[in-house]
Amino acid sequence: MKIIKPTLIVDKKKAVKNINRIFKKVQQSGNVRFRPHFKTHQSTEVGRWFKDLGINSITVSSVDMARYFASGGWDNITIGVLVNPLQIQAINQLAATVELHLLVDSADMVKFLDTHLTFPVYVWIKIDTGYHRTGIEYNQTGILLETAKAANQSMKLRFKGLLTHSGHSYNTDSTDQLLQVYHDTVTKLGNLRDFLEKEKISPVEISVGDTPTASVVESFYGVDEVRPGNFIYYDVMQYYLQACRVKDIAAAVACPVIARYPQRNEIVVYGGAVHISKDYIRDKNKRKIHGLVARPDDSLEAWGASIPGTYVRSVSQEHGIIKTTPEFLQKVNVGDILMILPIHSCLAANLLK
Amino acid sequence: MKIIKPTLIVDKKKAVKNINRIFKKVQQSGNVRFRPHFKTHQSTEVGRWFKDLGINSITVSSVDMARYFASGGWDNITIGVLVNPLQIQAINQLAATVELHLLVDSADMVKFLDTHLTFPVYVWIKIDTGYHRTGIEYNQTGILLETAKAANQSMKLRFKGLLTHSGHSYNTDSTDQLLQVYHDTVTKLGNLRDFLEKEKISPVEISVGDTPTASVVESFYGVDEVRPGNFIYYDVMQYYLQACRVKDIAAAVACPVIARYPQRNEIVVYGGAVHISKDYIRDKNKRKIHGLVARPDDSLEAWGASIPGTYVRSVSQEHGIIKTTPEFLQKVNVGDILMILPIHSCLAANLLK
Repeated sequence: MKIIKPTLIVDKKKAVKNINRIFKKVQQSGNVRFRPHFKTHQSTEVGRWFKDLGINSITVSSVDMARYFASGGWDNITIGVLVNPLQIQAINQLAATVELHLLVDSADMVKFLDTHLTFPVYVWIKIDTGYHRTGIEYNQTGILLETAKAANQSMKLRFKGLLTHSGHSYNTDSTDQLLQVYHDTVTKLGNLRDFLEKEKISPVEISVGDTPTASVVESFYGVDEVRPGNFIYYDVMQYYLQACRVKDIAAAVACPVIARYPQRNEIVVYGGAVHISKDYIRDKNKRKIHGLVARPDDSLEAWGASIPGTYVRSVSQEHGIIKTTPEFLQKVNVGDILMILPIHSCLAANLLK
Repeated sequence: MKIIKPTLIVDKKKAVKNINRIFKKVQQSGNVRFRPHFKTHQSTEVGRWFKDLGINSITVSSVDMARYFASGGWDNITIGVLVNPLQIQAINQLAATVELHLLVDSADMVKFLDTHLTFPVYVWIKIDTGYHRTGIEYNQTGILLETAKAANQSMKLRFKGLLTHSGHSYNTDSTDQLLQVYHDTVTKLGNLRDFLEKEKISPVEISVGDTPTASVVESFYGVDEVRPGNFIYYDVMQYYLQACRVKDIAAAVACPVIARYPQRNEIVVYGGAVHISKDYIRDKNKRKIHGLVARPDDSLEAWGASIPGTYVRSVSQEHGIIKTTPEFLQKVNVGDILMILPIHSCLAANLLK
């Protein structure tokens, strides 16, 4: 393997270990379906690592991604964002060939689908349990009931249940808080299921899915389906959330060193916003961190521990500026390859797919 | 034209006006070469708008981009980042067919090129005038002289001059500060030119290029070449820097509305980090702004004024959350298209190219 420009490297051993860890927990949680989110890798090759374990249902984040995986042989797909009515034609094409699951959060959208669908689909009602991106808010039971009734009465829709993405788990700073987000999420969804069942809408499944809580709960209690995605690669953000260890991070961007500046203890790599994205986290000293840094091993397919005192402090379109120590700088030359452990592996993988 | 998913829309009239405004200023500045940076659009179709004006030399930000434009007929290209020695083979292929300009900041790289080049190229020495990304720092005259001498003595390299990107212009907050950055930049480069000429290294050209200062100076004094790029589209960041007006912004991402939440005055569009990037600015109230919002006109190829009180407050992989007013929310429906004026048009254009 020869690397001459920014290249996404996946350590397959680590990735498969990450898949197995979560999958085992799903299996030990009883009757829970694993529907991993494939937006992280967007690759049928990586998808095969899941299929080899007997995993057959997936989540994606766009109609185009659903088409990509459908043409790669996946036949049970949830499009994990609210229906975009402008893509109804492509949705109908998909529904003709795969078991398609869609997300709605209004009776209007249920009616739109009922009018325009040419093949039956499953629908989930998106619930906002606190992230405040999309979905019916937990306390809007009137809107929920109206939407659920419309879905239940439709001939073309099969109402499947309640679904959420507790993205506010990304705003926590301890494992206890993550466990609390999970507990709060499944409690709220459980209450809404009870509410609907009292209204004679039944059965109602519950689907959750975010990597931080999925990584720390001991068992997936209170749910019928889990849909995390990022866990296959993890990243520096998950490490800061204590959802993984640095050594679990299974994706890195290999970048050529193009400059070294001893007077400011900085190394510049060819590899920037168009390769690793502009995502960052702030460390406890409030410094922006755009990535951690490691040395590749000889195969260039894996890498060692992250270098102490060394991080990407800034990225522009094609450049990454690495702040480091005199000791490490001394050992690095222009033309070397360094591995950038990304802040958000989904975005890095999307950029380099 | 039909738009069903996030799509980059360029208002050609505005873009051509933006090109003409800067080009006219270049022409009025006397003997100055215009070498626009094409990393902003990365499109041979858009490149033709420059060629139609008689502009024949360009800047790009990667070897791949140089190859793309070379195959599109451009034959005078500066690769505006330091040489990545791992791509020497592609550099040689390019140098065989186009007038190639490269950037170096060390005698070591000059020697590397002298050893490995099979065709002659022009080299510029990258100077760090205050941005602290790459280049020889202004006061490191010893390193500069060593590098310039090596370049001047090489049989394969033609030493062309001193080049900088004053990216610290992005950290200003007034036109006066922008003018000061320009003045400081050309003064420093002028001093270094005098220094080299005293050392019998001559002629030494001076090349600068950043959109904020290029937009506000009355004339490009003190330089032989200017290389701005972003000005063709501008964006919200340039507007905040007072480098353009909102109505000069010539690129927007058309996004379908997929949800509306009157209880929190928010609209959610299909269009997120993988379409408009994660770049943001902070407004005077310290709020993060990920984009402004406008309505498309009927052609979907242009748009109106930005909507008052309305901005993208957050983006995730595929979603953008727009904070707005009750008045505007009332007029927006799921299935509508809204235009997101991006924070950084280069990154949005790269994502949707």
